[in-house]
Amino acid sequence: MKLFRRLASARGSVPCRALADVARREPLLFTPGPLTTSDSTKQAMLVDLGSRDGGMVHAVRDIREKLLAMAHVSQAAGYECVLMQGSGTFTVEAVLGSVIPPPSAGGRLLVLSNGAYGERMATMAQRLGIAVDVARFGETDPVDPAKAADALRAGGGGGGAFTHVAVVHHETTAGVLNDIDAIGAAVRAHAPSAAYVVDAMSSFGAYDVDLAASGVHYLVSSANKLIEGVPGFAFALCDRARLEAEGGHARSLALDLRAQWRGLEANGQFRFTPPTHALLAFRQALQEHADEGGVGARRARYEANCAVLTAGMAELGFAPYVADAHRGAIISTFLFPDDARFDFARFYAALADRGFVIYPGKLTEADCFRIGSIGRLFPSDMRNLLAAVRDALAEMGVATPVSLRMPAAVP
Amino acid sequence: MKLFRRLASARGSVPCRALADVARREPLLFTPGPLTTSDSTKQAMLVDLGSRDGGMVHAVRDIREKLLAMAHVSQAAGYECVLMQGSGTFTVEAVLGSVIPPPSAGGRLLVLSNGAYGERMATMAQRLGIAVDVARFGETDPVDPAKAADALRAGGGGGGAFTHVAVVHHETTAGVLNDIDAIGAAVRAHAPSAAYVVDAMSSFGAYDVDLAASGVHYLVSSANKLIEGVPGFAFALCDRARLEAEGGHARSLALDLRAQWRGLEANGQFRFTPPTHALLAFRQALQEHADEGGVGARRARYEANCAVLTAGMAELGFAPYVADAHRGAIISTFLFPDDARFDFARFYAALADRGFVIYPGKLTEADCFRIGSIGRLFPSDMRNLLAAVRDALAEMGVATPVSLRMPAAVP
Repeated sequence: MKLFRRLASARGSVPCRALADVARREPLLFTPGPLTTSDSTKQAMLVDLGSRDGGMVHAVRDIREKLLAMAHVSQAAGYECVLMQGSGTFTVEAVLGSVIPPPSAGGRLLVLSNGAYGERMATMAQRLGIAVDVARFGETDPVDPAKAADALRAGGGGGGAFTHVAVVHHETTAGVLNDIDAIGAAVRAHAPSAAYVVDAMSSFGAYDVDLAASGVHYLVSSANKLIEGVPGFAFALCDRARLEAEGGHARSLALDLRAQWRGLEANGQFRFTPPTHALLAFRQALQEHADEGGVGARRARYEANCAVLTAGMAELGFAPYVADAHRGAIISTFLFPDDARFDFARFYAALADRGFVIYPGKLTEADCFRIGSIGRLFPSDMRNLLAAVRDALAEMGVATPVSLRMPAAVP
Repeated sequence: MKLFRRLASARGSVPCRALADVARREPLLFTPGPLTTSDSTKQAMLVDLGSRDGGMVHAVRDIREKLLAMAHVSQAAGYECVLMQGSGTFTVEAVLGSVIPPPSAGGRLLVLSNGAYGERMATMAQRLGIAVDVARFGETDPVDPAKAADALRAGGGGGGAFTHVAVVHHETTAGVLNDIDAIGAAVRAHAPSAAYVVDAMSSFGAYDVDLAASGVHYLVSSANKLIEGVPGFAFALCDRARLEAEGGHARSLALDLRAQWRGLEANGQFRFTPPTHALLAFRQALQEHADEGGVGARRARYEANCAVLTAGMAELGFAPYVADAHRGAIISTFLFPDDARFDFARFYAALADRGFVIYPGKLTEADCFRIGSIGRLFPSDMRNLLAAVRDALAEMGVATPVSLRMPAAVP
């Protein structure tokens, strides 16, 4: 029994290793997520609650209601919020895999794609045995609603009508914002019986979405994006009538959207162990989102961050790769300098050493990097980052203002 | 810009609401998980790291290596550790769904089931379109290796040989420990080409498993069980040759075990956003597991907890429902008292009010409740719980020692 007494007396006194292992000041994340969150959001995780605990059930209900309200809908208005464990991709797959009938029952998905996340939905559908067509747009262009209308009118392979249409609201690949209202109108006009699925992973919480007005039947976003929680779960806002009617196609037990919803409704609990700490952090993050002033204020902060960033980068010779009219204020893509001394790995490391974490590019056509303006970042953080960028370039011997390495073939 | 300055100056000063909302002392969890974890494990979550950050990549590698070592294997010995977002069920589904061929290619699963978690694997297989047979055992009995051998020899419907055999190591339904070594020997003897899948969710970390010696090809456990991390991910320890050879059957993109492994090997990162905070907590929990003395010491503490619990409950008239020879030290099932004044909801609430969270029963044949002895609990915690149990019973007017409400038909 000596061992247990020793352990009991040492309870909580084991030193925390995570900070020490960082071996530097906690970095600021200029990434698409996981993001820098507030201290108070992280501190909300310092409690262990049981998954059936009344406090946990209350937190889950609170989160579900507030997310619906953020999209200007409610349970009374016929909408449901389903929380699902895992990353955002898990919830996107739960939606597609649960609500789209197999080809034998006439299911057919149209993905309107202008980047990696649109392509991911198509890959997912193929893996799930769903009939899928992809209408592709340039990585730096928004989805064109008129061309989307053409694709909808044309129907899928063999002329079959689309039962579901999916698009990404903010394509993080290059940082392009798609007009989900105009696309929704095209869906209503040219495929009026189709369900409209929006991946709003890196838009929801800062770009206003009115689910009913936009005609969105399923909207997916994640805890660790613009609401500034920590990763661990994502959520789908669903048109209840559609979910009830077509939600019986789940190919998976874990990723069964309708069963997850019914479980949450039955007793307020997840069917399988929930990420209790991430849920408590998210409830705190939602409260801070409201305290800041909601969707509009959050967007205003990100826009201010982005404005500081693009102005400062312009002084150094970097112009955003995506045209102003098409860009969101979420993440900005910059081409590499046309200078042999520029080395992205060194640039990244030099910034990371200074406590600023940026993100590699994801474009297929151009060498680029990305800088996010989201998470608990402020214009002062953007200015500090810019000073570090200037330093890092000087350290490599890259003269500023730089000229940019244009891609061989601009799409 | 005033708004941003105000926010910037208030950074981190928003009060943490989670503790206040608990509206009582943080409870101790006598449940099967999420569990009570150490303060230092939770404090490891107070850092935001990017998913591509060097510190994060290092933590992921460290976790994967240590989990293999805990099962007495290594990459060098031909084994791999795959981490997967979500609850343990997600990883069980990732294993079954990725490695078992469809019926058309001869895949056939035998589930040896003595409780809800065995049944869940069978349900999962059905949902995934996998041919599955279930050999059932009583909820309070262990799986009988001799009968398992019979089932293996008999083969599945139509006499087809089983390609995969799955069993739960510790069935949390009643708290029964299955002999995975003896079952593994039966698999080797009677289905030598079959892969052996073990759900070790609530055993790994306290019950020693030697993957190679037990002939286990896939072992699944979760971050928030006996290693005492927080929920957010689970892991599969895999025989690499089998995973490589048969891992191409994934029905899902998110739950593709082999692709997840290849992603981890390629750049040390998850394919999709990882639960960064839960990973940092888990690394701390692994360190504390080692500091305590590893698997043997962890088991000894749980056994000491369980001994205090069962002795104290016996004084009150409660005997564990599962025979001593079949019980683990993880969770104990107790029948309801045979007293009209006993009301489980009141009993649960009375204990919760005192800061002790227990768990409802899950048996199909008997009214019961469960008390866990795992997580960061010590014999002193068990004694405090027992005092609260005594109080709660007195409050309801239930006389002790109680007599027990025997089920109509004991299996």
